[in-house]
Amino acid sequence: MPDPSHPVSFETRPADYRHWKLSFDGPVATLSMDVREDAGLSPEYRLKLNSYDLAVDIELADAIQRIRFEHPEVHAVIVTSLKERIFCAGANIMMLRESSHGAKVNFCKFTNETRLAIEDASDHSGIKFLAALNGICAGGGYELALACDEIILVDDGNSAVSLPEAPLLGVLPGTGGLTRVVDKRKVRRDLADFFSTLVEGVKGKRAVEWGLVDAVYPTSQFKGAVQKRARALASTSDRPVSGPGIALSPLNPTVGDATATYSAVSVVLSRSKRTAELTMHAPSGPQPSTPDEILRAGDQFWPLRAFRELDDALLRLRVNEPEIGTIVIRTEGDRDAVLAIDRALVQNQSHWLVREIILFMKRTLKRLDLTARSFFALIEPGSAFAGSLLELGLAADRTYMLHDDDEENQIALSPMNGGPLPMSNGLTRLQTRFLSHPDKPAELLAHPGSWNAAEAQEAGLVTFAPDEIDWDDEVRLALEARAAFSPDAMTGLEANLRFAGPETMETKIFGRLTAWQNWIFQRPNAVGEKGALKVYGQQGRPEFDWKRT
Amino acid sequence: MPDPSHPVSFETRPADYRHWKLSFDGPVATLSMDVREDAGLSPEYRLKLNSYDLAVDIELADAIQRIRFEHPEVHAVIVTSLKERIFCAGANIMMLRESSHGAKVNFCKFTNETRLAIEDASDHSGIKFLAALNGICAGGGYELALACDEIILVDDGNSAVSLPEAPLLGVLPGTGGLTRVVDKRKVRRDLADFFSTLVEGVKGKRAVEWGLVDAVYPTSQFKGAVQKRARALASTSDRPVSGPGIALSPLNPTVGDATATYSAVSVVLSRSKRTAELTMHAPSGPQPSTPDEILRAGDQFWPLRAFRELDDALLRLRVNEPEIGTIVIRTEGDRDAVLAIDRALVQNQSHWLVREIILFMKRTLKRLDLTARSFFALIEPGSAFAGSLLELGLAADRTYMLHDDDEENQIALSPMNGGPLPMSNGLTRLQTRFLSHPDKPAELLAHPGSWNAAEAQEAGLVTFAPDEIDWDDEVRLALEARAAFSPDAMTGLEANLRFAGPETMETKIFGRLTAWQNWIFQRPNAVGEKGALKVYGQQGRPEFDWKRT
Repeated sequence: MPDPSHPVSFETRPADYRHWKLSFDGPVATLSMDVREDAGLSPEYRLKLNSYDLAVDIELADAIQRIRFEHPEVHAVIVTSLKERIFCAGANIMMLRESSHGAKVNFCKFTNETRLAIEDASDHSGIKFLAALNGICAGGGYELALACDEIILVDDGNSAVSLPEAPLLGVLPGTGGLTRVVDKRKVRRDLADFFSTLVEGVKGKRAVEWGLVDAVYPTSQFKGAVQKRARALASTSDRPVSGPGIALSPLNPTVGDATATYSAVSVVLSRSKRTAELTMHAPSGPQPSTPDEILRAGDQFWPLRAFRELDDALLRLRVNEPEIGTIVIRTEGDRDAVLAIDRALVQNQSHWLVREIILFMKRTLKRLDLTARSFFALIEPGSAFAGSLLELGLAADRTYMLHDDDEENQIALSPMNGGPLPMSNGLTRLQTRFLSHPDKPAELLAHPGSWNAAEAQEAGLVTFAPDEIDWDDEVRLALEARAAFSPDAMTGLEANLRFAGPETMETKIFGRLTAWQNWIFQRPNAVGEKGALKVYGQQGRPEFDWKRT
Repeated sequence: MPDPSHPVSFETRPADYRHWKLSFDGPVATLSMDVREDAGLSPEYRLKLNSYDLAVDIELADAIQRIRFEHPEVHAVIVTSLKERIFCAGANIMMLRESSHGAKVNFCKFTNETRLAIEDASDHSGIKFLAALNGICAGGGYELALACDEIILVDDGNSAVSLPEAPLLGVLPGTGGLTRVVDKRKVRRDLADFFSTLVEGVKGKRAVEWGLVDAVYPTSQFKGAVQKRARALASTSDRPVSGPGIALSPLNPTVGDATATYSAVSVVLSRSKRTAELTMHAPSGPQPSTPDEILRAGDQFWPLRAFRELDDALLRLRVNEPEIGTIVIRTEGDRDAVLAIDRALVQNQSHWLVREIILFMKRTLKRLDLTARSFFALIEPGSAFAGSLLELGLAADRTYMLHDDDEENQIALSPMNGGPLPMSNGLTRLQTRFLSHPDKPAELLAHPGSWNAAEAQEAGLVTFAPDEIDWDDEVRLALEARAAFSPDAMTGLEANLRFAGPETMETKIFGRLTAWQNWIFQRPNAVGEKGALKVYGQQGRPEFDWKRT
């Protein structure tokens, strides 16, 4: 994993789910885990006891996405299991054991993004999540519950929540568990320490007292209590009472050996140079501008279509093309059409569907920020780096803008750069960029019209603005230099420089927790021949190098 | 390194410095780097071009400490070099190449703490620091400059600041460089990206424009400008105009094979169990309570003496005893004497020396928080977990308090628990502990008198309160279980659970930056046979596994 002959696809739909059942009852949807043991990404492991791999999580991510767009009448989601006395045993250990370092890291990153999408829906979409733990809930299972607004545990004398990764496997709970226990649920740190070293976990009254779950109910009362709490959560929503939603149809990219072509996104790989060229195409022709028109356009409305394609392209690059180190971002088309779309989005942002589209664009741009590849944006004549598409340039590690003699190459801001698309650190990309000049984002946003290359560089919106004589060489040399550096050093560099400014629970999960987990994921104490992750479930006990660092 | 036959000592004094010259001129001290090539910790490398190893940094840490305590008349410090056209080439690469993973990690941690001690002196002690870069300033050299309040660079057409670690060595600047560039100096992230991949660095006007340095001066004006800026910085100080300071005399612990005995601290190792018992002894007899008495007591004043000993003990454990995984903390003696000391500290905290003592206690407790060992505090009859000594219990991963039948075992808070000793995250340990109940620290601090075990557990101040029947077994089993876990998993677990709540530049350095650096420090791309760090300066070029994660 990844197996080049079987690239991972991130697209699915409910009719194809093999691991989840999605059902609807008025304002409450129920998302039930029922993992098919033999339907993981690889035949080398069996997904016992509702354990999961990337295939299971791709379905979960899809289900949450569809609830948001296709079912505006859903105001609360019950996350539960169809397996008797088992909620979820967490990430499959055999899968982790067999996976390469990169596959483990990418798996954890995607599951983290999916958990954060649940919290994003709760915080911003009016969809509340209730974890209904009908049985044992271990590791990643508890981390999924932690992403929900409320956690209810059955009190049957056996069912417990636990984070057994450290004591059992010598690794960390990799999907935000430690962070959410102390930062979201604010469990006391010494109790969290004890809990996180207890293989059997904590159940019953103690789990409530320590803040690990919100309530426990005996088996006889469990289902009733879950329904009651779900209705109460649903009643807090500002979503519409009824639909219609919009259908999310398949993206159907044309995928070649070194290309992936979508309607508004194209990717061309240059494997020998370890770079990819990713181009986003601005819309053309008249665009919907009212909620009704946008509803009618549905998933063909340009920003939703284009950013869904961008999201898919980024995920494929991450998992299927690990050796592509640098992604060159370009845009093409009508700048004014992007600005018109942005106006329609901002004007109608209180409409549920427009809100969802903006939130989706936000999450996709965060996915880009969190992608461990170098991004260089190239702004050339004919480009459309305006408003929400300019966010690609602001997200890039560097931006080169061609200073053409006739100064036709221009960029423009829109209100979409001023707030609706924040980074994980809670700031807009403009605010993060101009930490040293906190007033500057507002000044720039008040600027009418567009900037040519010299003006854009003067304003600090682009990194370099070579002229036509220097452009080719400067860009080529920059890309060649980047491609020659240690890929690990670039990953670490970017993970530090991209997230200047405040940290949030979200950045703590990706910065602090994930970085430590990645460290552990390659330590011999975890993955060596006698490491805890390797030895688990086999003969013998782990053997540790006892040196603490 | 560490070589058990040559344990590292962290004690030194100016007369013994081999790498720094410390001189005084009224309110301005000058700390000049002049590294002796053959006087590193190991004969296996030579410290060329003012490159440094732990030995060099131990002297730097000592010098800053002595300026604070021994020279209250110093209001500003010039950090410069005595080598022609060279400020500092950063951490010695041969040293890094030859070091074990643990040695690299501990080296970076100590250098980070020393840089943060510079910033602590600037923020809280009225001592401002001016980096006077008289020549090339690379890597760790620039990171040292970044810790200063102002950076002046000579403009000689050659001298530049640089962070060449990533492009040259495939690792990160490990001493806060990336964080300080974007978070302290607020350099724009795309410029920071370019700068951090540029081996030759940035010089002259561009370095000023990008915010990498504060000013450049031609060689002829450099010394004059440095003096002028240093006097200006000194004029902002609230330190006394003249001394006397107090002398910091050697600690002179009695060190045996498995023991280290100081006046107020004792350490007993149990290597087979991989635990250490660290006991702090409360003061006895009458204690100074006025600034004059405290000045007269000097470094024999209990809190300064005891916390200097604790600091030294922690550093020795970190570097010389890597296999000791768990540190059991005990206290002994007169609880009321500690509370009396705390009263004297708080009442006189505006006096420069008392302020320094409190700041030193704060830094030592932060050193404990950042030590990658498990800490279990045991509170037993005869203990003195009160006020500033109770911070040891609040810093511990868990605290066990014996519930004795006669309820003589008690703990107590003091105002020292309410603010003067914050953690790296900016919160007190009580605030971090009670994130879920923000009003609770104030309530607890208002509680008169002490708590017995049952009360302390009820108040949430201790983790467990076993009675006399259960105590021995429960404590023994907890310690045995801890000692059996993967040491890496415990390091990662503790690094996440200890720092609940907000992140600061300081926690970003130790959490995000250090975690990524530690990850890179064991990747084959850095330390493998063909890794960039291994190959540097030898025949051949590095060979990378190009997969990005």
